[in-house]
Amino acid sequence: MSEQTERKATLLDGTATARAIRAEIAEAVRAFKQERGIVPHLAAVLIGDNPASETYVAMKQKACGWVGMESSVHRLPSDTTQEEAEALVERLNADPHVHGILVQHPLPKHLHETAVLDKVSVEKDIDGISRMSLGALVNGEPAFPACTPAGIIELLDRYRIPIEGKHAVVVGRSIILGKPMALLLLNRNATVTICHSRTPNLAEQTRQADILVAAVGRAEMITGDMIRPGAVVIDAGYNRVEGRSGDVGDVHFESAAQVASYITPVPGGVGPMTIAMLLRNTLLAAMGNYPATK
Amino acid sequence: MSEQTERKATLLDGTATARAIRAEIAEAVRAFKQERGIVPHLAAVLIGDNPASETYVAMKQKACGWVGMESSVHRLPSDTTQEEAEALVERLNADPHVHGILVQHPLPKHLHETAVLDKVSVEKDIDGISRMSLGALVNGEPAFPACTPAGIIELLDRYRIPIEGKHAVVVGRSIILGKPMALLLLNRNATVTICHSRTPNLAEQTRQADILVAAVGRAEMITGDMIRPGAVVIDAGYNRVEGRSGDVGDVHFESAAQVASYITPVPGGVGPMTIAMLLRNTLLAAMGNYPATK
Repeated sequence: MSEQTERKATLLDGTATARAIRAEIAEAVRAFKQERGIVPHLAAVLIGDNPASETYVAMKQKACGWVGMESSVHRLPSDTTQEEAEALVERLNADPHVHGILVQHPLPKHLHETAVLDKVSVEKDIDGISRMSLGALVNGEPAFPACTPAGIIELLDRYRIPIEGKHAVVVGRSIILGKPMALLLLNRNATVTICHSRTPNLAEQTRQADILVAAVGRAEMITGDMIRPGAVVIDAGYNRVEGRSGDVGDVHFESAAQVASYITPVPGGVGPMTIAMLLRNTLLAAMGNYPATK
Repeated sequence: MSEQTERKATLLDGTATARAIRAEIAEAVRAFKQERGIVPHLAAVLIGDNPASETYVAMKQKACGWVGMESSVHRLPSDTTQEEAEALVERLNADPHVHGILVQHPLPKHLHETAVLDKVSVEKDIDGISRMSLGALVNGEPAFPACTPAGIIELLDRYRIPIEGKHAVVVGRSIILGKPMALLLLNRNATVTICHSRTPNLAEQTRQADILVAAVGRAEMITGDMIRPGAVVIDAGYNRVEGRSGDVGDVHFESAAQVASYITPVPGGVGPMTIAMLLRNTLLAAMGNYPATK
């Protein structure tokens, strides 16, 4: 450790930022309850017995509790049929006491996952990943933005990091992260490049980024030499690595922090922001005030 | 004209390519009618009295005739209400004799255009611009791709120009062209950069393109010096310029054709491909065989 050079980058503290947002949401929930008598309610759908999904849903329920929201978990067994899964979502769509619906994924393999997600009505899709919500990122109609990319935009905003006119490079093109991230950055007037596993000259692309978002799912694949000095580096990775405890990001933190101007740590960067956005979306859903996807 | 230097680029002949596609479609329409007794039917919705819209709809009807498809035009006056416009779309959705629905835009200003477009059922949205169809570009579910970007992909394919692993730069981010174009190129494994009016260093970006798609709507703004030697240049612009007859592209053809390897002319490039894709989508809709958006 004595060889370690000094970190130059400022940390983008997702934990502290999310805490501040939660406090704002808690206050808004209190006021909304007082004025309208309504407590925002997040309903989670949990199908099968994936232990990671159990953990995530429990974490989200706990977060609802922090801000004074109600939450419920609706369980179906792992041999649930497509019809049963969709019927549960339809029932929650129709329930006026439920404001936000979260279908925890991945679903069991035999189910058509996107078809279930697509059943969530756009007004209650606080996770922002139904086809209607994703389409809104393209056509500009109101919908909830997917929580992780929305959390990244919010983190940049809270640190007053400008997006407009910047060159943002997104590495990864998943439905929940890379693609909606690119569209959100584009809606904020960044020039956006999307790279992925088939990009032959990745370092050449990433070195052009003013804002670099790593969302590949490969531990520490983005190293300092792939980063333009002074770039803002967002690490949305959480990888399990044999012999290391906790999650490991997509960015090699030590080397990246020596060239970046700002960088998110893992953990404590993007993760807490994701849950904060889920809470905010649920509050807005309860208020019937669902926003444009910018 | 004696000063004119030699054009180096090969022309991507959209007129000839579209003619070949129309012949294939005509044959498929004939076979489908023989086997199933069904004639594909495209219904156009025309609201108000925009002369350009009249021309476009007439052109599309004529194209249906060429390939043996039925077409109909459903007119509403310019003071049509939102409810009346949406009700017409719903009626066409429910009509089993209608396979494809085309809502000619722009709609009169008092109407909420995307709300009308979004009413078109995804199975009949042969124009590929409802929110459900656009969302499919993000989440990978089947839907019809928007006709102009789909036509550009088809033109590249017919000329055996590889897309995978290439760096595609799209200039423009409209709902019907720039954004779906970027997503289609991404689905074909290109690395994709999206530039627009707020991109500060446009030439720097365009010069990196292996495949450059100009969809800005500004006459001849992409000049030869903005193009990497050997790049494939696609001009999706059609601008009216005072004192010049016909449409003028977004690319300055003379200078671009000296550095590009392939280039589309205007007219006779992207335009005819758009209508060919509309016909293909209508045929597929009639067959109940609507494709993935790749």
